[in-house]
Amino acid sequence: MATINEIGVAAAINIVTSIAFLIAFAILRIQPVNDRVYFPKWYLKGLRTSSIQTGGFGSKFINLDIRSYVRFLNWMPEALKMPEPELVDHAGLDSVVYLRIYLLGLKIFFPIACVAFTTMVPVNWTNKGLDGLKHTNISYSDIDKLSLSNIPNGSDRFWVHLCMAYAITFWTCFMLKREYQNIALMRLQFLANDERRPNQFTVLVRNIPVDPHESICELVEHFFKVNHPDHYLTFQAVHDATKLSELVQTRKQMQNLLDYNINKHMRTLSKRPVIKMGFLGCCGEEVDGIKYYTSMVESLTREITEEKHRLRTGTKSIVPAAFVSFKSRWGAAVCAQTQQTRDPTEWITEWAAEPCDIYYDNLALPYVDLKIRRIIVAVAYFFLTFFFMIPIAFVQSLANIEGIEKNFPFLKPLIEVKFFKSIIQGFLPGIALKIFLMLLPRILMQMSKFEGFISTSSLERRAASRFYMFQFINVFLGSIVTGTAFQQLNSFLNQSVSDIAKTIGVSIPIKATFFVTYIMVDGWAGVAGEILRLKPLIIYHLKNSFLVRTEKDREEATDPGTIGFNTGEPQIQLYFLLGLVYAAVSPILLPFIILFFALAYVVYRHQVINVYNQKYESAGKFWPDVHRRVVTALIVSQLLLMGLLSTKGAHKSTPLLLVLPVLTIGFHMHCKCRYQSAFVTYSLKEAMIKDTLERTREPNLNLKAFFRNAYAHPEFRVGENLDLEMAMEKPDKLPELVATKRGSWRNTSLPSKHI
Amino acid sequence: MATINEIGVAAAINIVTSIAFLIAFAILRIQPVNDRVYFPKWYLKGLRTSSIQTGGFGSKFINLDIRSYVRFLNWMPEALKMPEPELVDHAGLDSVVYLRIYLLGLKIFFPIACVAFTTMVPVNWTNKGLDGLKHTNISYSDIDKLSLSNIPNGSDRFWVHLCMAYAITFWTCFMLKREYQNIALMRLQFLANDERRPNQFTVLVRNIPVDPHESICELVEHFFKVNHPDHYLTFQAVHDATKLSELVQTRKQMQNLLDYNINKHMRTLSKRPVIKMGFLGCCGEEVDGIKYYTSMVESLTREITEEKHRLRTGTKSIVPAAFVSFKSRWGAAVCAQTQQTRDPTEWITEWAAEPCDIYYDNLALPYVDLKIRRIIVAVAYFFLTFFFMIPIAFVQSLANIEGIEKNFPFLKPLIEVKFFKSIIQGFLPGIALKIFLMLLPRILMQMSKFEGFISTSSLERRAASRFYMFQFINVFLGSIVTGTAFQQLNSFLNQSVSDIAKTIGVSIPIKATFFVTYIMVDGWAGVAGEILRLKPLIIYHLKNSFLVRTEKDREEATDPGTIGFNTGEPQIQLYFLLGLVYAAVSPILLPFIILFFALAYVVYRHQVINVYNQKYESAGKFWPDVHRRVVTALIVSQLLLMGLLSTKGAHKSTPLLLVLPVLTIGFHMHCKCRYQSAFVTYSLKEAMIKDTLERTREPNLNLKAFFRNAYAHPEFRVGENLDLEMAMEKPDKLPELVATKRGSWRNTSLPSKHI
Repeated sequence: MATINEIGVAAAINIVTSIAFLIAFAILRIQPVNDRVYFPKWYLKGLRTSSIQTGGFGSKFINLDIRSYVRFLNWMPEALKMPEPELVDHAGLDSVVYLRIYLLGLKIFFPIACVAFTTMVPVNWTNKGLDGLKHTNISYSDIDKLSLSNIPNGSDRFWVHLCMAYAITFWTCFMLKREYQNIALMRLQFLANDERRPNQFTVLVRNIPVDPHESICELVEHFFKVNHPDHYLTFQAVHDATKLSELVQTRKQMQNLLDYNINKHMRTLSKRPVIKMGFLGCCGEEVDGIKYYTSMVESLTREITEEKHRLRTGTKSIVPAAFVSFKSRWGAAVCAQTQQTRDPTEWITEWAAEPCDIYYDNLALPYVDLKIRRIIVAVAYFFLTFFFMIPIAFVQSLANIEGIEKNFPFLKPLIEVKFFKSIIQGFLPGIALKIFLMLLPRILMQMSKFEGFISTSSLERRAASRFYMFQFINVFLGSIVTGTAFQQLNSFLNQSVSDIAKTIGVSIPIKATFFVTYIMVDGWAGVAGEILRLKPLIIYHLKNSFLVRTEKDREEATDPGTIGFNTGEPQIQLYFLLGLVYAAVSPILLPFIILFFALAYVVYRHQVINVYNQKYESAGKFWPDVHRRVVTALIVSQLLLMGLLSTKGAHKSTPLLLVLPVLTIGFHMHCKCRYQSAFVTYSLKEAMIKDTLERTREPNLNLKAFFRNAYAHPEFRVGENLDLEMAMEKPDKLPELVATKRGSWRNTSLPSKHI
Repeated sequence: MATINEIGVAAAINIVTSIAFLIAFAILRIQPVNDRVYFPKWYLKGLRTSSIQTGGFGSKFINLDIRSYVRFLNWMPEALKMPEPELVDHAGLDSVVYLRIYLLGLKIFFPIACVAFTTMVPVNWTNKGLDGLKHTNISYSDIDKLSLSNIPNGSDRFWVHLCMAYAITFWTCFMLKREYQNIALMRLQFLANDERRPNQFTVLVRNIPVDPHESICELVEHFFKVNHPDHYLTFQAVHDATKLSELVQTRKQMQNLLDYNINKHMRTLSKRPVIKMGFLGCCGEEVDGIKYYTSMVESLTREITEEKHRLRTGTKSIVPAAFVSFKSRWGAAVCAQTQQTRDPTEWITEWAAEPCDIYYDNLALPYVDLKIRRIIVAVAYFFLTFFFMIPIAFVQSLANIEGIEKNFPFLKPLIEVKFFKSIIQGFLPGIALKIFLMLLPRILMQMSKFEGFISTSSLERRAASRFYMFQFINVFLGSIVTGTAFQQLNSFLNQSVSDIAKTIGVSIPIKATFFVTYIMVDGWAGVAGEILRLKPLIIYHLKNSFLVRTEKDREEATDPGTIGFNTGEPQIQLYFLLGLVYAAVSPILLPFIILFFALAYVVYRHQVINVYNQKYESAGKFWPDVHRRVVTALIVSQLLLMGLLSTKGAHKSTPLLLVLPVLTIGFHMHCKCRYQSAFVTYSLKEAMIKDTLERTREPNLNLKAFFRNAYAHPEFRVGENLDLEMAMEKPDKLPELVATKRGSWRNTSLPSKHI
């Protein structure tokens, strides 16, 4: 395995990369031309309309103020300056709670690291356990001397590790409980202070049974008038708008092509752009681009209008689901928490998510479909998870210097060059994994969509939990088992079951160096890359040069996206897992993890303040998942330590270690009973307080008007459509073009691409 | 192991015993003097007041009608004659659903047995796999030739067993699903047709937080008036009546002693009974017995009256729990299913059980106490379950003829006598286990009480589930593993892990003969003994001779008790487990199990009609437990078959068998989603229908009066107390004695023992 030198080189490379990224960011962010990439949130909130200029020629694009270069790192204290309540107002509770995951990591691991380095590392270092391995085929390095591997079998010193395991468990549980409590309180306060929103009064009803004598609308009306007579107010039917969505999507593409052609025409002015109608635009009849696309957009718009009219007047497209609104929050809370009929598969009610959080495509799925889809996805996920291991195992085995030398002896002279050797050792395993993992979140998201979840937030939570399981099996277990398997294939085949367990136990501490590299590549460089936003920067400048004509276009080009819970959280959880597993085994990992958490906290705080724009607000509903995963990691760490110590001849410790998982599970159940309900239900008392307050403040409130179209399908919202249709009444004449303030061309009368 | 002859002897003994019991029952039941033992339910229902007499001298006590002896078995068709709906009216839904467990056993195992004996037994019999074992130390018998053990390793014939496993799984699941559906429907219909009861309107609220400014009564009143303004009606506070219960208990004892002394005086007439005041009534000062106990009863009655007054006027004894009644079932359904406040550990609401089902002692327990008690009980149960195995293992090892001969060689001549040998083989293992198990249900019931359950029905359900786990680990696994372990201890110690797995796999079919014996002793003889009711018969006649003076006394002496869900159901489940495990391995067990189910069904149907008197009605709420346990047994059977087949060299079957547990778990989850809610929640639609009907029928109903004292502590109910206190106003004069109709002495003016 890697020696201290190799680790040092890898660390140096990664630190240099990270610092380079940070410096690049520090320079790029103060250029006015990049303002919309690095501070899009302020534009979206309307608090900034143009970039801050320092004066002088070219200062619109480039920052010429030397002083600002000197203060290039001052974004860090700035990111930390905004107090939490203000951050909640600015970015929403979800983002704040998300940031607290990093803080939780710091709170858990910093004290553990301090204790580990003052008590356990000296105990490990002053042993010669690894010297006995010199003549075996298990290789080790100096770094391993800091770890538990260095203690000879059956030594009394394992008591230190045992105590450490207890300390880790208690400290982690203590911090977890405090954090769960805090976040539950934050959520409850947030909900209590939240302004009036449709989702507070609305319940989503699904699986409305079909009745041959009544339409779905009549059914819903009757059912709730009978069974919630004092509280029912109104409902919003759900339409199957698949065709409409497709039409809108196609029009958007056509609109883009039209824009492109108009832009092209603007530049060349004399020649009108020409396109070919054949295969891939390479052959066939030539037509005028602008005219063609204009007519396409026009006919699509007409179709959209017709489809909308059809949906609005007909009842065939109504799916057996509805958003039912109540006169009070109390009524909605009651309806969401109770069973409506005998048959639990009919009239299923649940709190409606925010309108912008709803994933409309899945609302129509009947009960049986959902079950079948769940099974299909479970099977697909199983295969995905276990067959993904094959390529990773292959890359892992390649990434091992000795492995490469054995398998590709012709590469030996190249590898023996020290520089290459370090690069291979330091980068390859991490990067190969990273590329694999980059493809994954999208697949998992599609799986969740297929599975039938009905809100973006639940889709993201589900995808996150699958991604975590995947990382656990493939990155964590896969790296430990496969790596070892390749090194010690020979001894493996000749050993019995109990000996194999021993080998795995021994390989956990030895794998520490691999995970150090992984943390540096995936964690440090990843976070530094995150703040640089290289991809959005390039895309923005490209779009800005070629496509942007209206202010709205520019807004779309700068769309910063969301923080990506489904990819970010599982990554953090992997570090929790690594930290907890290695805390009592190879504490050398801890400083790397702490540095990751600290850097990531600052970077993501900056991003949350300045960049990301959450699409929905679930008020921290994902915390129970976060909590559960950290607890799982804790239990895994305890079990692995138990296995490891039993192979090290410390059999006496097993019963004492066995207590820990039992305690941890008990702790988890306690927390679940105590705090989870704050994230799942809404108590009648809270609902009643909010209702009473509102009734006192606004006695004549017209709630019915408030709910009108609140939950209409997004392609269906009224106000925006009108603009659009009005705009389409003059499609023939070429759009007027006006110069915007910033000098680029802007088209005011062309239909907006945004519907 | 046992040969066919030995099994035959055991079967003969058990059949003779069972038939003797049945004949004894047939004769005893038609004696008028035993009428109250064998038909107590009819007396309790007031449908019979004295036994049917056949005329002639002595016919009050003994049946002299010869014809009735000829028809002595006609109780069987009689027991089966009553149709199910009538039985529901007569004995309640709980009993009917309980009987359906036996029917389910028949429905599952009869077709399986038919298929097994026509297809699998011939396949097993026509092999010579066991001949290979002749020279090893694993012993076998002819019966084992019917089982899977007789098929040589790696044979293609295992496909038959694989198909059988699939058939068993699908058939069992099909029957389970149908039964779950039926019983859910029965429950829903029962609840829909049920007359008005306080528990339909009432919710139990626990963990009311303490407020220094308000009493608990004020708190409850305010809380529900604010948070359920349109539905709240009234509430009933819960008193801590521990002291009162103790006093009442003591007075009951004193009353019994007083009765005994009065009876003694009646017989001797001249001499007044004298008791000694010293240690155990053996020494010390002599006093007049009647006077002493009369004064004791008197002073206790006074104390009870004072204690009641204290409880009724003071507020200190009120515990932080209350029964809150609503104006409508809808309001109660809403309150029971929703969370009341932020903190899920305060104001916990749930449906109140029937007043007679409530276990008052546990109502006051706070949340933290409950959690701590649950942990304590879990630990205690763990130790109970695993340390109980030691004596069972010892008895099991003794019960093995070869084992005894090896360990106690001096007993060899005795054992070799054929008769003794058969007895030991046939009886001992079963009886030893049975005695152990007889002690257990009470301990488990006490554990459940300590754990804090608040209704008798839930106490019984919990105790049943613990009893089943216990039987599973100790009777089922314990018998298989320990028995084998003792026989093959030597080979065990010298084998590796995989070889041990092989040995256990092989021992499952060989253990079949033990379980056949167990079924005969525990099942057949147990059921026959159940109908004879020897213990209640003796106790009744003893009490009737010495203690009974009033009609009420006699009623108490004939108290038939309940069917005992906590002991009966786990026993049935053990037979389900045995049947499912052995169906594909040693189908020879199936006829024994089917006979048990059939006999038990008839016997318990008779008992339910004529004897048992359920204390509460939970409307079959225990069915999800029953269902879950049968599913568990099915999964265990699949896993064991998988292990067994893999040791028999049928490795190809493992993946195919692995599908079965996955499918079964899926089936269980489906059933849970689909039917469980019928046993847990009460839908708003049902509530609304019942409310509307009632409002139309009785528009001027005074519900408040209906609830008054419905949920008062049992020692506290008003009417009975008044009788008692009035009766106690003339305690000095010796009670009048009147001859009852049946000729025994009856005391009309003495205070009733019943409070």
